[in-house]
Amino acid sequence: MLKKFKIPDATIGRLSLYSRFLKEADDKGIITVSSQQIAKATGVTPAQVRKDLAYFGEFGTRGVGYNSKELYNYIMKILGLSKRWKVAIVGAGNLGMALSQYKGFSERGFDIVCLFDNDPQKIGRKVSGIEVCPLSSIKDKVKIFNIELAVIAVPAYAAQEVSDILVDAGIKGIINFAPVNITTPDNVMLRRVDLAAQLEYLTYYLED
Amino acid sequence: MLKKFKIPDATIGRLSLYSRFLKEADDKGIITVSSQQIAKATGVTPAQVRKDLAYFGEFGTRGVGYNSKELYNYIMKILGLSKRWKVAIVGAGNLGMALSQYKGFSERGFDIVCLFDNDPQKIGRKVSGIEVCPLSSIKDKVKIFNIELAVIAVPAYAAQEVSDILVDAGIKGIINFAPVNITTPDNVMLRRVDLAAQLEYLTYYLED
Repeated sequence: MLKKFKIPDATIGRLSLYSRFLKEADDKGIITVSSQQIAKATGVTPAQVRKDLAYFGEFGTRGVGYNSKELYNYIMKILGLSKRWKVAIVGAGNLGMALSQYKGFSERGFDIVCLFDNDPQKIGRKVSGIEVCPLSSIKDKVKIFNIELAVIAVPAYAAQEVSDILVDAGIKGIINFAPVNITTPDNVMLRRVDLAAQLEYLTYYLED
Repeated sequence: MLKKFKIPDATIGRLSLYSRFLKEADDKGIITVSSQQIAKATGVTPAQVRKDLAYFGEFGTRGVGYNSKELYNYIMKILGLSKRWKVAIVGAGNLGMALSQYKGFSERGFDIVCLFDNDPQKIGRKVSGIEVCPLSSIKDKVKIFNIELAVIAVPAYAAQEVSDILVDAGIKGIINFAPVNITTPDNVMLRRVDLAAQLEYLTYYLED
């Protein structure tokens, strides 16, 4: 059991990056990596790598480095990824379809098990082997498949209503891709992904 | 002219959030907001709001707060958003189609002007008024439309090749949605959006 506490979001994001690099290193048979190597591969400073890891304990051997596989496994455990998670996507439009086919989910332990929509034209279709189900069936599906996470990929005007339905169905964590702020009760984790904000990381540096 | 320097990515992300809240406040006719109000609306502490803004100068009046419109305009300027940006999307699959229709871009000043693909079946089609053009035409289109930013929404195996083509065409900043690490020369900004990593912000807190 890991102690869970509030660490900076940016640290969680970097742990994601570190674990990807460690996986690659381990796959290549590289047994030991230094904080310098982790830093270089992920675009941060070695001090930042050590600081991020220090939140969770003492790792590595001074002058030697970290065991790739051990540190990978430990970070995956920290991130809650030592088990697989069942995920529902709501909205079978282009974004929902794209997300249901996104190759990056499965390799990190996320199984998209259902795609929900209200459009009778879409219900019953299969997208990459995943069936489009009526939103009204979500409570049953959450129970049957033990779904804990959901992704909202519906238009902005429908996002809050969909979120309320997900909360009611027992979903524990929600990612909202709709370009609107929504709210959930305190016991349901919510994170908004603002695609425009991603471009703003670039324009900050490009504008002169 | 703003002085550009390296500030934490997380600060840029929060400035994006603050500016959205300030826009809403200004639209509602709220003239003055406090750091407490900004903090509450964006899920951070008031001290963090003040620290983020302090990177860029002195704002607001002690005991009164910030002028919503002024601070909004100033943050937009910091983020490089006091002008509109022309954006190309490469890959007219589900993700590219979803991004080309994403409502959140235009309101932040991003105009998607071209969608590129190599598939003859897709070339010439229009998606939300945006034509799908052959990737071979990108150099011309970048010049004609003055495109500075590009979004990569192609499969992982094609991402580096597409990136090289974009760099060669004179693109200044790239967002990569493909689940793979790619590289660009130092003079071209690159940012990877890892959709799985978004879920990992949730699982960190949900796992017990």
